[in-house]
Amino acid sequence: MATIKEVAMTAGVSVATVSRVLNQNGYVHEDTRRKVDEAIAKLNYTPNEVARSLFKRKSKLIGLLLPDITNPYFPQLARGVEDEMQENDYRLIFGNSDERRQKEMDYIQTFVQNNVVGVISSTNDPDTDIYTGLKIPMVFLDRTSSGQPSVYADGREGGKIAARELVKRGSKRITVLQGPTHVQPAIDRYEGAIEILEEQDVHYNVLETTSFSLTDAEVWAKDLFGKYPDTDGIIASNDIVASAVLQEAHRLGKRVPEEVQIIGFDNIPLSKLLAPSLSTVHQPAYEMGRAAAQLLIQLIEGQYTEQQHMKFPVKFIERETTRKVD
Amino acid sequence: MATIKEVAMTAGVSVATVSRVLNQNGYVHEDTRRKVDEAIAKLNYTPNEVARSLFKRKSKLIGLLLPDITNPYFPQLARGVEDEMQENDYRLIFGNSDERRQKEMDYIQTFVQNNVVGVISSTNDPDTDIYTGLKIPMVFLDRTSSGQPSVYADGREGGKIAARELVKRGSKRITVLQGPTHVQPAIDRYEGAIEILEEQDVHYNVLETTSFSLTDAEVWAKDLFGKYPDTDGIIASNDIVASAVLQEAHRLGKRVPEEVQIIGFDNIPLSKLLAPSLSTVHQPAYEMGRAAAQLLIQLIEGQYTEQQHMKFPVKFIERETTRKVD
Repeated sequence: MATIKEVAMTAGVSVATVSRVLNQNGYVHEDTRRKVDEAIAKLNYTPNEVARSLFKRKSKLIGLLLPDITNPYFPQLARGVEDEMQENDYRLIFGNSDERRQKEMDYIQTFVQNNVVGVISSTNDPDTDIYTGLKIPMVFLDRTSSGQPSVYADGREGGKIAARELVKRGSKRITVLQGPTHVQPAIDRYEGAIEILEEQDVHYNVLETTSFSLTDAEVWAKDLFGKYPDTDGIIASNDIVASAVLQEAHRLGKRVPEEVQIIGFDNIPLSKLLAPSLSTVHQPAYEMGRAAAQLLIQLIEGQYTEQQHMKFPVKFIERETTRKVD
Repeated sequence: MATIKEVAMTAGVSVATVSRVLNQNGYVHEDTRRKVDEAIAKLNYTPNEVARSLFKRKSKLIGLLLPDITNPYFPQLARGVEDEMQENDYRLIFGNSDERRQKEMDYIQTFVQNNVVGVISSTNDPDTDIYTGLKIPMVFLDRTSSGQPSVYADGREGGKIAARELVKRGSKRITVLQGPTHVQPAIDRYEGAIEILEEQDVHYNVLETTSFSLTDAEVWAKDLFGKYPDTDGIIASNDIVASAVLQEAHRLGKRVPEEVQIIGFDNIPLSKLLAPSLSTVHQPAYEMGRAAAQLLIQLIEGQYTEQQHMKFPVKFIERETTRKVD
């Protein structure tokens, strides 16, 4: 009896392609599909149901590691990854790393033990052994590495945009809320913002924060106005932190944006529902998730991929926590 | 060389129990552990690392199916499940069903193909063949079924609370935003609210909605004030919908809560950041996720579980979109 390998050889395609035709999932070009159908007819091949399901099973799991799904930026990324994977009949083993090295290592290890065929990870240590030693395709998401494929947003430019917009709109005493110093996108944004503030010789202060959690953000927001009561422009490390700052400004009776401007980062869905609605720097999270999944699938299926580093542009979303310019 | 099977036979326990002792995960009674240790010593058994990791792999995956991770209520549930599973060395295959039957069936099927040892699912069809025919332990989360273990919140009581609080605070022409009619918790809340409104003989209208998406919610919010311009109390189907209603009220210049009171459902993290902050009915999502995971682990490990149906209480969170009572 003919095997799936013989069908693949006769049709001149990979076993994965034959499997996609048989299982009617994933994209297969019309011509390729015809070749496979012809090979199946020629060899009188009957797919063995058990073998099929084994084959399907083996090729199906992907490991996805994100920092924390309760930060509203990450569900967008996760959903983009999942939609693309689901449409192509891959399934996700999912974990939260909490940006902690040990949890991250544990997850990557069990991904491998569970025979994942690829990994998507938001890591702060892309060059560590866990990744360089990985024998399966992987893509960094929301993070980048010179050596490995990655899909990320232009955080540095995002930081620059935030600083430029506040300065252009008249803030003179800016406070930069620096995100966690071990989280790469937070570092990029921070450095971008500082570069512009230095260049334009604007007075600024920096307040370091250590997480993106809302509970912590509420404490930092109080801290901020305690330390720098006359600040008139705030660059928050993300939208959650910006939301907490906005609420604290309300509580103190400061008018936003007249007395103090606030700009966030991410453009999470609820940022436009705040009152005043939050001006922020948009990252195309859902699209980035989709793109990372597409790239990983191409790598897994051995397709030629021109672009292994995809830097997504970010953009300013003007809402009501920044003043209008003429 | 002795095998793990021989150890199990000698100790008079299952292979899974020996594995739990070897891998130091999962609960094993002290007496059982001693028997296993004695059998290991007697047979001079050395665990084969490869076999161990193979065995470990088999026992590790759990399928988790939620409606939509981009609805901010569900990341809390997911995080509760994941934290509990991670601490007990289980891993999650995760999928979004979008409350669609076909996607749900596809996922459950591939969970099984991937040898998950248990399933946690938020389904609207708990009594369907997919679940009743499942040969592995499962727990319904955020949903309930008479036959199967489940962890859920008291949605009906939640609906009653929302209606009672608005009536008590003086709303006379209430609009109930009825959630999707195929989503069980939405039905429960709706019915609870209507029961109270009928009982107290309050004038009310119902506006049916078909999803919890923010984009849709913005349309319904416009609809609501178009159809019922003199409504003075709104029971929203969840916090997302409530947020959109609050924003539309702002846009129309309606004072909240003086002219119109709004109450949400879920108590998602950002509901307290809205201005005015959102009064809502709290569901303990994270705790429910943890409880569902604990229950499933007990079922998988064959432990006695007294309570297979856990209904979590809900409570009113008084904030600023409802008026004060003396």
